[in-house]
Amino acid sequence: MRVEEIAEKALRIVKPNKLEEKRFGRIVDEALKAARELAENAPGVVDVTLEGSAAKNTWVRGRAEADIFIHFDPETSREELEKRIVELGTELIEELGGEPMLMYADHPYVEGIIDGVTIDVVACYRVEPRKWIGATDRTPYHTRYVIEKLGPGQVDEVRLLKGFMIGCGVYGAEIKVRGFSGYLTELLTIRYGSFLDTIRAAASWKPPIVIDLEGYYESVEDVLELFRDSPLIVIDPVDRSRNVAAAVSHRRLSEFILASKLFLKRPSLRFFRRVPGRPRASNILKLAKNRNILYVYFRLRERKPRDVIWGELKRSEEGIAKALERLRFKVYRREAWTDEDKRCLLVFELDKLNLPSYMLHQGPPIHLRNAEDFLEKWIGRGIGPWVDDGRFYVLRKIGETSAIKLLAKEIHGGRVSISRDLASYFGKALIDSDLRRLFKRAGRDVKLLEFLQEFLKAKPPFL
Amino acid sequence: MRVEEIAEKALRIVKPNKLEEKRFGRIVDEALKAARELAENAPGVVDVTLEGSAAKNTWVRGRAEADIFIHFDPETSREELEKRIVELGTELIEELGGEPMLMYADHPYVEGIIDGVTIDVVACYRVEPRKWIGATDRTPYHTRYVIEKLGPGQVDEVRLLKGFMIGCGVYGAEIKVRGFSGYLTELLTIRYGSFLDTIRAAASWKPPIVIDLEGYYESVEDVLELFRDSPLIVIDPVDRSRNVAAAVSHRRLSEFILASKLFLKRPSLRFFRRVPGRPRASNILKLAKNRNILYVYFRLRERKPRDVIWGELKRSEEGIAKALERLRFKVYRREAWTDEDKRCLLVFELDKLNLPSYMLHQGPPIHLRNAEDFLEKWIGRGIGPWVDDGRFYVLRKIGETSAIKLLAKEIHGGRVSISRDLASYFGKALIDSDLRRLFKRAGRDVKLLEFLQEFLKAKPPFL
Repeated sequence: MRVEEIAEKALRIVKPNKLEEKRFGRIVDEALKAARELAENAPGVVDVTLEGSAAKNTWVRGRAEADIFIHFDPETSREELEKRIVELGTELIEELGGEPMLMYADHPYVEGIIDGVTIDVVACYRVEPRKWIGATDRTPYHTRYVIEKLGPGQVDEVRLLKGFMIGCGVYGAEIKVRGFSGYLTELLTIRYGSFLDTIRAAASWKPPIVIDLEGYYESVEDVLELFRDSPLIVIDPVDRSRNVAAAVSHRRLSEFILASKLFLKRPSLRFFRRVPGRPRASNILKLAKNRNILYVYFRLRERKPRDVIWGELKRSEEGIAKALERLRFKVYRREAWTDEDKRCLLVFELDKLNLPSYMLHQGPPIHLRNAEDFLEKWIGRGIGPWVDDGRFYVLRKIGETSAIKLLAKEIHGGRVSISRDLASYFGKALIDSDLRRLFKRAGRDVKLLEFLQEFLKAKPPFL
Repeated sequence: MRVEEIAEKALRIVKPNKLEEKRFGRIVDEALKAARELAENAPGVVDVTLEGSAAKNTWVRGRAEADIFIHFDPETSREELEKRIVELGTELIEELGGEPMLMYADHPYVEGIIDGVTIDVVACYRVEPRKWIGATDRTPYHTRYVIEKLGPGQVDEVRLLKGFMIGCGVYGAEIKVRGFSGYLTELLTIRYGSFLDTIRAAASWKPPIVIDLEGYYESVEDVLELFRDSPLIVIDPVDRSRNVAAAVSHRRLSEFILASKLFLKRPSLRFFRRVPGRPRASNILKLAKNRNILYVYFRLRERKPRDVIWGELKRSEEGIAKALERLRFKVYRREAWTDEDKRCLLVFELDKLNLPSYMLHQGPPIHLRNAEDFLEKWIGRGIGPWVDDGRFYVLRKIGETSAIKLLAKEIHGGRVSISRDLASYFGKALIDSDLRRLFKRAGRDVKLLEFLQEFLKAKPPFL
């Protein structure tokens, strides 16, 4: 099938149908109305608006979300604003019949699910562009920009791009994914015109990529100088000092490029469908056979905001990987997971689970003065020392060779850079390589099994 | 004890006593006389002389050796000379009541043991210096030079130096040792005056070392330019284009330097005594515990000349080490051994005996054209591929992980650079890691156990 045909078919996957659209519209209107009534007399509140994909009509099927923004006067203090948004958000969600959850990005907001629609109640300051006080202050301007620039036919192009990215596992700017935000997909569509033209452009990307829609900068070099280390730089039309793609990791960008190439070569609807294929524990044990998997599992005493726990886990994952490398294990791959409730898991694939009993240790050249210190230190303590190429060598006996025990010791000794807020959990975590013991402790529900299956298959979903 | 006292005591170890000297003199005289009679009418023979340590009176206790040189006219062809020396040598040894053994260095000679004295019957051409035809032609000039330069008291200094080197395992220019020749110890004594002064000089050596007794060269740089890669360069007083120390390996030189340092710091007679300390098979198994030892053992169908088999084994040892490294095993140490009869053994100490079941394999950056070939090649064949830092990676399944089996396969496939003359033996050799099986096959006599014990202790004898 030609790409155009596939894109047409894919639209049925990503685009809400009339009924869904109608229901969504009703719920959002209701929420917005209730929010405005609630906020009417609230001190500091100057406006209530609908933002995000709901406002731009770019939301995709299965991801019905509406961001209700409460705008505050810039005179309002941050404490005041945070206090008010929590109160207002909670009240609103409750009034709509939902269960309010307090969330954090770099600011608190309240989330609730009403008839299958996720409603986020978010605060921002009403300020002029580039006089931002908080991170959310730009959002209303983003909405306005996209509505202005996106032609009527292009909303479906955005939906296709989002659906493609969801299917390929690169959608979402949150720490868990480090992929493409909704706003970013909209800007890409504005830049390239359509879903297919975006994909065609991406297929030949060689990072770093620079997109400066409003032509704020004289040259690509200027941009690269300013946003070093970013593989994808999309200048925010609303704020020239901001990279809209700052959250996109090199890995997710590469996966998107690769998926674009492959899709153009062999167009298929499977790029839009993420089918994990019924994970079973027995299959996962089979996948893990003969491989060196080390995991760290623990349960939180109480749930943490999504972005907080993901951030802490990712940082800890990196710290543990560094510790393992320091202990002379090679970390092939690693991943963090949480059910976003209480269960947390870090998984590492290593070159081995045990060090050799003896390790080669190079000493100084024998003509150096410290050669004798080396001799005195090592004689009788290892195998050797012997002389080769004018240097001393010994085989050092490794007392503890198990990766599991060595890592546990490092963690207990406080020598691993793990998120401080999780330190007490890591101290009592299950550190092991046997996945059966993990299942015993953590259960074998679908989400965990899905994560493990993806980790062990070690392929992006579109491959 | 002071070094001088130790040296005095050591002299009793290395210097033959009156009785031994007398007996040695008698045997050598008898051999020389018989040789002269035998050679009197032999075609091409122009002289018969005593050479080596016997002629210079520098032989050490326990190493009573006499080199009888048959000098040929330069008109004699090499074939003729080789034929004659084998005939004459065989006849001579038989006449003296010994059992003649045909030996090879780069030339054939005949060896026999007469009443505990090793008699070598060697051919040379009588030529002017630097008109050398064969490698042995220089020897008579060496003898003459040393006799002329060595003062009467200095022969015992040579004996001490030889004894020290024997005790420290660095004496002998043969391939088995790659250490210091007798002639080299004599030149060192001439250069530094005494045993202790040689040791003192050596203790501060930092290779490369240049010794040019006759001042043939203008500068050290000229010498280094000419004899690159040699860590010790001793210009032959009899032939300025030859390095007397060419056979000395970096390892043996370093061991000598180290032994000199340590002896000066803590003088002891143990530097002159090589005591292997009663090796027992059970002790050797204990030493090998938890270490990754791989060995190759075979028996020759028939004995080979000493230098030939050692050379072949050393070359094969190197070839196998390279093959093992290619197979991704790290070779910590390696050694060859033969009883100089039929049994041959190569031993390797490795970082591991098994590869991991999966190995990381780096693919191309995903934006390169060949990235898709990589994908097609690997999809479904390994774990992954996944994308990291813009590149593909896969975990490649390793079908065969055992070092033993992998090496055997390489050898049988002809992909290991082993000495051609040993190829048929390697094809059927015992390749294993279990030393018990070696003992079963090769027996557990003292020489083999001694070698294994030294290998496993991995220390020069003086440490």
